[in-house]
Amino acid sequence: MEKIPKPVVKRLAMYYRCLERFKEEGKEVISSKEMAQRLGIKACQIRKDLSYFGEFGKRGVGYNIDNLLERLKEILGVEKAWKVIVIGAGNLGKAIAGHRVIREQGFDIVALFDIDRRKVGKKVQDVEIRHMDELEEFVKKEGVKIAIICVPRESAQKAADEAEKAGVQGILNFSPRVLKTSIPVENVDIAVALKSLTFQIIRRKGRHG
Amino acid sequence: MEKIPKPVVKRLAMYYRCLERFKEEGKEVISSKEMAQRLGIKACQIRKDLSYFGEFGKRGVGYNIDNLLERLKEILGVEKAWKVIVIGAGNLGKAIAGHRVIREQGFDIVALFDIDRRKVGKKVQDVEIRHMDELEEFVKKEGVKIAIICVPRESAQKAADEAEKAGVQGILNFSPRVLKTSIPVENVDIAVALKSLTFQIIRRKGRHG
Repeated sequence: MEKIPKPVVKRLAMYYRCLERFKEEGKEVISSKEMAQRLGIKACQIRKDLSYFGEFGKRGVGYNIDNLLERLKEILGVEKAWKVIVIGAGNLGKAIAGHRVIREQGFDIVALFDIDRRKVGKKVQDVEIRHMDELEEFVKKEGVKIAIICVPRESAQKAADEAEKAGVQGILNFSPRVLKTSIPVENVDIAVALKSLTFQIIRRKGRHG
Repeated sequence: MEKIPKPVVKRLAMYYRCLERFKEEGKEVISSKEMAQRLGIKACQIRKDLSYFGEFGKRGVGYNIDNLLERLKEILGVEKAWKVIVIGAGNLGKAIAGHRVIREQGFDIVALFDIDRRKVGKKVQDVEIRHMDELEEFVKKEGVKIAIICVPRESAQKAADEAEKAGVQGILNFSPRVLKTSIPVENVDIAVALKSLTFQIIRRKGRHG
């Protein structure tokens, strides 16, 4: 298979979510045009993205939703639940650990970790807060694959190093720090998203104020 | 000015953050190569992105950090603070409202809004929770430009409609719902980021499990 550009992967994950919605609404077949309208993406973009993985749709008929969901599940690697830990039991970490959407999408948050011993043993919904000293043993024993890093910038690289050393295979990074790792990292940078938004606002309005 | 692709804007916001770090570290001049190493991006990509806005750097010398920061501030529209509200005072909304990084980056979170009257009047750090009924008046009076939507999927479109009607100029959307608006929207979809991560993990490992 040829190398898939990252923006395509992000869109595939969006298509997956969109198809789940259509399925909930009782649809069985969907056209790229209908998906395009729902997602605000061009239909030709959707057809091109899906063509990376072979021909799914029938011209003039559309995509069978169940088939396409199955195929996207395989492609995205979400056929089975992934065990996930959250490092950093501050407000953001606790909000992420309890976030309904993450759980619904096949990610099983099995523990929160923190260096603050006063937090250890407490629970966020049903997720226990553990001490960072336990991280390596826990990751190995439970087969944790993903760490979500919700610690401040100063501590983020250390948290990533410990996660990687423990055997975690990928990191979702909420800190503004650019992490150096040999495992894949996805960054969720809220300040960058806000700046991308202000850029669009001022281009649109001429000026703000 | 020609149209700037969205990935470029995101990278410009990253460069901005990276340059702030270098400045904190006492540097005055920086090469695209040094930025590239810090950010894990190719130096030629950085030079190309910055060239959208004219010539900044001197060949063999690098970029003057203060000049480049000033220019990026203008481009990204962050010369002055933007007033921001958070809609949805659940765990995620409260975590976002108190998030240090957002405040440090020139976004002034002035209120949280919720439909739950039991929450109204409470404070998250120094940010008061107000009722959605007050939204329009507050936005107009305070000159709020941005709404961060942290409500469940079912309520997200309604929240966006009310924000837009009140006069908000852009939305940062944490819900998994694709919003229909006539103002710019940036999406932070945590489940999509996680799927993009699992895609990379399984491509890297061959298979997981």
